[in-house]
Amino acid sequence: MFTDEYFMKMAFQEAQAALEKDEVPVGCIVVYNDRIIARAHNLTELLNDVTAHAEMQAITAAANMLGGKYLIDCTMYVTLEPCVMCAGALAWSQLSRIVIGARDEKRGFINKGLSLHPKTEIVSGILENECSALIKDFFKSKR
Amino acid sequence: MFTDEYFMKMAFQEAQAALEKDEVPVGCIVVYNDRIIARAHNLTELLNDVTAHAEMQAITAAANMLGGKYLIDCTMYVTLEPCVMCAGALAWSQLSRIVIGARDEKRGFINKGLSLHPKTEIVSGILENECSALIKDFFKSKR
Repeated sequence: MFTDEYFMKMAFQEAQAALEKDEVPVGCIVVYNDRIIARAHNLTELLNDVTAHAEMQAITAAANMLGGKYLIDCTMYVTLEPCVMCAGALAWSQLSRIVIGARDEKRGFINKGLSLHPKTEIVSGILENECSALIKDFFKSKR
Repeated sequence: MFTDEYFMKMAFQEAQAALEKDEVPVGCIVVYNDRIIARAHNLTELLNDVTAHAEMQAITAAANMLGGKYLIDCTMYVTLEPCVMCAGALAWSQLSRIVIGARDEKRGFINKGLSLHPKTEIVSGILENECSALIKDFFKSKR
């Protein structure tokens, strides 16, 4: 039951919640022992805050839930490849595993030559088509 | 009166406030029209949050003060060169100018090959010796 697809669907629901608020639709959850300990979606417009990406909020919320600042033994599911800021935060967090929906060739950390923490396992391409379509349709509607 | 040294001293006072709480001593202020609109220091230990770097808090606070998410026409004074996370956040913020105290060869964004926003002017080496000594002494005391 607790497959990567299962949890990515939860992250995708967060992205849809962002879309309903006319935010760039990116969603994210953090899982520890098959339990969701943080859910977040992009809120940069609502909060007037460029740092309010889904991943940043989820890192803070998960650490708060765990009572410690490191996300060891946690998996983050995020619908879009993290940007430089979020990748930097994830590196500090020592997250154990990240599962990415769609790649972000332009703004994502991978093409910037950055890496996360050396112990972080990276998986990508889970629900890729749905995650990618959600964000592409959003930007198309804005043009 | 309102020189870069003047404002860097204010950022340095923030770094000293972090030191008093046994936090990694980094401090930062944001200035708009010669007025300080945000002050912050590192609080990662107190808040149990890897994202609570001085710069991240100052970006959020300054945007809140300005009522908009972009830090156009603002200058950030920070005692230590920003890390990858903070550089990514500053890039999103479109900050106009950053003044850096000490370089961070290992964790700083410059040696990672990253840049800030194309419109951000970067100045470094203001109060460099004081800023550098503060952080080096801190880590020496921890060994």
